[in-house]
Amino acid sequence: MIHSDAVVIGAGPVGLWTVFELGLLGISCHVVDTLSGPGGQCAALYADKPIYDIPGLPVVSGQGLTQALMRQIEPFQAQFHFGQQIEEVTQVDNVWHLRAKSLGNSAGCAFAARTVFIAGGVGAFVPKAPALDGLHALVGTDVWFEPPSLPVHTAPVRICVLGGEEDAVQYVLALIEGQQPVQVNLLHRRDVFKASPPALQKLESARAAGKVRVIAGQPLRLHTTGQSPQRLTGIDIDTPADDVIALETDMLVILQGLGPKLGPLSRWGLQMARKQLVVDPSTCATSVHGIFAVGDIVDYPGKKKLIVSGFHEATQAAFAAAAQLRPDEAGPLQYTTSSKLLQQRLGVQAPASDT
Amino acid sequence: MIHSDAVVIGAGPVGLWTVFELGLLGISCHVVDTLSGPGGQCAALYADKPIYDIPGLPVVSGQGLTQALMRQIEPFQAQFHFGQQIEEVTQVDNVWHLRAKSLGNSAGCAFAARTVFIAGGVGAFVPKAPALDGLHALVGTDVWFEPPSLPVHTAPVRICVLGGEEDAVQYVLALIEGQQPVQVNLLHRRDVFKASPPALQKLESARAAGKVRVIAGQPLRLHTTGQSPQRLTGIDIDTPADDVIALETDMLVILQGLGPKLGPLSRWGLQMARKQLVVDPSTCATSVHGIFAVGDIVDYPGKKKLIVSGFHEATQAAFAAAAQLRPDEAGPLQYTTSSKLLQQRLGVQAPASDT
Repeated sequence: MIHSDAVVIGAGPVGLWTVFELGLLGISCHVVDTLSGPGGQCAALYADKPIYDIPGLPVVSGQGLTQALMRQIEPFQAQFHFGQQIEEVTQVDNVWHLRAKSLGNSAGCAFAARTVFIAGGVGAFVPKAPALDGLHALVGTDVWFEPPSLPVHTAPVRICVLGGEEDAVQYVLALIEGQQPVQVNLLHRRDVFKASPPALQKLESARAAGKVRVIAGQPLRLHTTGQSPQRLTGIDIDTPADDVIALETDMLVILQGLGPKLGPLSRWGLQMARKQLVVDPSTCATSVHGIFAVGDIVDYPGKKKLIVSGFHEATQAAFAAAAQLRPDEAGPLQYTTSSKLLQQRLGVQAPASDT
Repeated sequence: MIHSDAVVIGAGPVGLWTVFELGLLGISCHVVDTLSGPGGQCAALYADKPIYDIPGLPVVSGQGLTQALMRQIEPFQAQFHFGQQIEEVTQVDNVWHLRAKSLGNSAGCAFAARTVFIAGGVGAFVPKAPALDGLHALVGTDVWFEPPSLPVHTAPVRICVLGGEEDAVQYVLALIEGQQPVQVNLLHRRDVFKASPPALQKLESARAAGKVRVIAGQPLRLHTTGQSPQRLTGIDIDTPADDVIALETDMLVILQGLGPKLGPLSRWGLQMARKQLVVDPSTCATSVHGIFAVGDIVDYPGKKKLIVSGFHEATQAAFAAAAQLRPDEAGPLQYTTSSKLLQQRLGVQAPASDT
């Protein structure tokens, strides 16, 4: 169990700014995110695309903004826990206990903290999955959301790859070019793939050579052995012509990218409205004491889903949490330009002030 | 009379960000400031000092932030009116008429606008003046807040310079080293001056040579000719020893720097609390329809006087004003990363989006 004053859920720009404002106020924190690195939507959806409306940065990429914020929070040495999703939040003696599950192979973390900041953006970024009965029971054996290590077989493995973009195409090509005997089907809702020209060209050649079968359609249901442990045996596929194809397969690899999901926090008992967390804008406190929420996930009168507003919300939340955590230390607002204390926390030596 | 959708009062960072958000929403504006250039407090108080808490800018000077924001708002071609202070605001047929007075020699502007944004910071920056009866009637003839052009006299001009910092010391040295015959008194509340070492050294030499008399004390009252037009004849000075010195002088040059004054807007009938303008944080609307206020000058529950919050307030105000000015155009929030319309307004060509 990791004990901390604060846990920030979400390492997007607004989560990172929460770390900064907490740090200025002398509060250290742990940060948890489902993604494998910082940046949230900025990294997952528009890493290379320009953003024009961050004040003081006439143009910056999602990645550039993330890097700048990571540099800015460096002095506060927040600890990051990537590839983890907070599953459960329970209160024990005025302290919040958080249990995370790992989305990869590491162990899930557990935290105890008096304040929690949900900087959840549009939700946790998790792999997009088709709605198929029995799918999740097979994850990690015959269903994968990332390229699996292939079992060593003498007979060829029958693999169905679901996806229509670069990741899926590249994985299909890697399978064909690999040493393992495989029989590869590439399943996508239509026979149009969004990938780099060389990858598309190789895919065409592989199709012409009969090394991969492309199926346009949607997975409809899974077939399994019907015994425990369940094993995948096939997929029914709904094709545009309304025919259902029964595809025999040993393994389904789903590479449809990441999509945001509100996820478990919808069950934490926080007041919600239109799938947003309702907060008091003066503090960004949720309906539950000690849990704050900031950024795109919140709602209050006049709320705009803009990063510039998220930065302000993170600031409000940090001050409100500081008042809760250190009620005796409240004093006049200090400025990084003039405050020796803040400059010490930032690890900077400002030029001697002319008194 | 200049007609515009919007007038922004104050060209500090938050005023500049108001221009940006208005521009994104397709609203052009005029900007008025008492200072001679953009930046507000950032330029007047800490142009060269580092600021550490602007998100995405790990360290930036007041001047650097101002320059970045000026670059960022360039596409929107706001028109700036510097050295002007809005004196009067009156409403005529749902339009606000604003009358500015010039703090220099130019004519004051007049504006007609449906929306007004007060980004007044800690107040308008105006020269710090001693409280002396009859002072303002002499401004521009015998009392100056900037180094005046000296009249050509055969007899030496008797000048009293009021101030204790670099500006005042440098002006005294320039007078001594100039061609004009002058008799110079340097008046400051105590015999300690804050200036660069070379300037202080020159001042010492000048004192030793009898070229300047330094008087420690505070101006108490002015003596004038008593006829119209009034002319200055002398100043009574209260010295630390409680003696009053009567100093004969033809000219008083006040170089005590700039200080913020709430100024005329305290008479505009806007609801105030503790010298702040009360706003609805969801819109940053003041108590008067069409007048918005943002930044350090406003108050609402939880208000922190931080630039990061001012940026958010400017955004809220711009959206609320757009809803008032263009009620038919309200639509879903658009993003600079993806919206062709916003990119067109910004004058940028974003990379082709992969649909």
